[in-house]
Amino acid sequence: MTATPIALGPNHTPLLEQAITGAGGELADPADARALIWNAGPEGFPERLPENIEWVQLFSAGVEEWFDTPVFDRHPNVLFTSAAGAFAGTVAEHALMLLLAGVRALPEHLAAHSWRRQELGRSIGTLRNATVAVVGAGGIGRELIALLAPLGSRVIAVNRSGTPIDLPGVVETLPAQRLPEVWSRTDHVVIAAPATPGTRHLLGKAELAQLKSHSWVVNIARGTLVDTDALVEALRAGTIGGAGLDVTDPEPLPEGHPLWDLPNALVTPHDSNPPQLRTVAFAEHVAENVSRFTKGRELIARIDVAAGY
Amino acid sequence: MTATPIALGPNHTPLLEQAITGAGGELADPADARALIWNAGPEGFPERLPENIEWVQLFSAGVEEWFDTPVFDRHPNVLFTSAAGAFAGTVAEHALMLLLAGVRALPEHLAAHSWRRQELGRSIGTLRNATVAVVGAGGIGRELIALLAPLGSRVIAVNRSGTPIDLPGVVETLPAQRLPEVWSRTDHVVIAAPATPGTRHLLGKAELAQLKSHSWVVNIARGTLVDTDALVEALRAGTIGGAGLDVTDPEPLPEGHPLWDLPNALVTPHDSNPPQLRTVAFAEHVAENVSRFTKGRELIARIDVAAGY
Repeated sequence: MTATPIALGPNHTPLLEQAITGAGGELADPADARALIWNAGPEGFPERLPENIEWVQLFSAGVEEWFDTPVFDRHPNVLFTSAAGAFAGTVAEHALMLLLAGVRALPEHLAAHSWRRQELGRSIGTLRNATVAVVGAGGIGRELIALLAPLGSRVIAVNRSGTPIDLPGVVETLPAQRLPEVWSRTDHVVIAAPATPGTRHLLGKAELAQLKSHSWVVNIARGTLVDTDALVEALRAGTIGGAGLDVTDPEPLPEGHPLWDLPNALVTPHDSNPPQLRTVAFAEHVAENVSRFTKGRELIARIDVAAGY
Repeated sequence: MTATPIALGPNHTPLLEQAITGAGGELADPADARALIWNAGPEGFPERLPENIEWVQLFSAGVEEWFDTPVFDRHPNVLFTSAAGAFAGTVAEHALMLLLAGVRALPEHLAAHSWRRQELGRSIGTLRNATVAVVGAGGIGRELIALLAPLGSRVIAVNRSGTPIDLPGVVETLPAQRLPEVWSRTDHVVIAAPATPGTRHLLGKAELAQLKSHSWVVNIARGTLVDTDALVEALRAGTIGGAGLDVTDPEPLPEGHPLWDLPNALVTPHDSNPPQLRTVAFAEHVAENVSRFTKGRELIARIDVAAGY
């Protein structure tokens, strides 16, 4: 079988070259290639692609900025794919880390400098038999559910339509409009929903008041989904267990902000998907799509230009 | 169907009463019961059980102290079961928490009080595609493997015999005698083996020297399996990533011990299975065995008195 000619640009890395050649492709100039793997943003993208290019793989999961360029319009016969889904695994892993560290009281343990077994042991909780609401059951949410199931958590999944999520561990799927029912029924909450006008401050004062004193809130989506002031108030008062936040509002979180000093707030600076992990995950995604392309199978994460995403 | 009469002692708790009645049993006096659920140690155990007692459920996973009493010898016709396996889930969850918090650099993040995204992001690793050696693949080890598999880790399992562990995520099972091969091949190590003369200091200076600078070591078994002085030296020198320790040698770890202050040592005071979680897990175990007993099925965690465990 002849290898499929694939172009790589603008940056060549051994990892991506290996992903392409290991999946049945061979590196080629754009003039001779059937596809282009583009590992950068829109700046510097070729004004006109050669006619022989049938498919372009882009580097990011969200492609809003590409719609601000004429790239799609200029190439109506080219199939574009994004990296949607490629980074869900590392973000879900980060969410699980924050949730587990909170529920099992790691911050209190790290602050201790002596063997306070009885006292510290009392603060240890478990995800086993705990109800965890996963708000937003897209790529990240589904990956997270797969991590929670073997821990014995009972997941309430919330998605836009309420279409049942058929994964082990999910005890119920609710549509977004029934979100108000979730807060009083769950132990913990993980926010993994997109930022839209409708999801702004979905977790505010009234919602926090319905959570339990042991409840942990994890946000790995967008800071604006949580009302920061209301969260700080709940954390200070101890009406919830704590919060693990990879995203904040405002972001970056300014120095001196109370979230930096609250012992029950775990803040990571939007780095759940740092460059070194992103690169590896993108290479895996490229390998999968090159393999599909060489076999004539349907590619993953195809961009629907007409629909705008 | 008539409920099976089960006695509970020495302490009645609503949780255990519910476990018994919810599984097809009904609470009865020992004189009228077919089984006894005993939620304490040997002290205060009846000198002679009524003849009608066929089965006794004990409270602990290890039953060494019961073999120092005449209880088993005095009741040769009674089947005794331990709580072996009941607490594996919570200990495995704790091990995963320590490993994830270490690999994803939570301690550095908690020490930061400003948005140092680029710098902190560089220190974040992942368990995805990472090799994790699980040394000791008994109850806890197997539970942990089930948690690691969906994270995409490649597990090298080590058990006494090398009998292949047939679980997703396990890429190889090695017998204990081939442990020396493991250190240079793995990213991370979780120690879940029993403490025996043969496992003392199984992780010492020579073994630590073969690990990687990003390697995390987690010990949730017994402190003596690790050479503490060699570990402190490696943590100080930064030749490994860090250590998450629920057990230490000596134990309790004295105040002023270097492990309390090293930023890459996460110490929890042997509280991975604290009383409040232990109680719940024991109740689940009782429910399972009562259900099996009422149906005439084989009980789990039967004690083999002749074999001594």
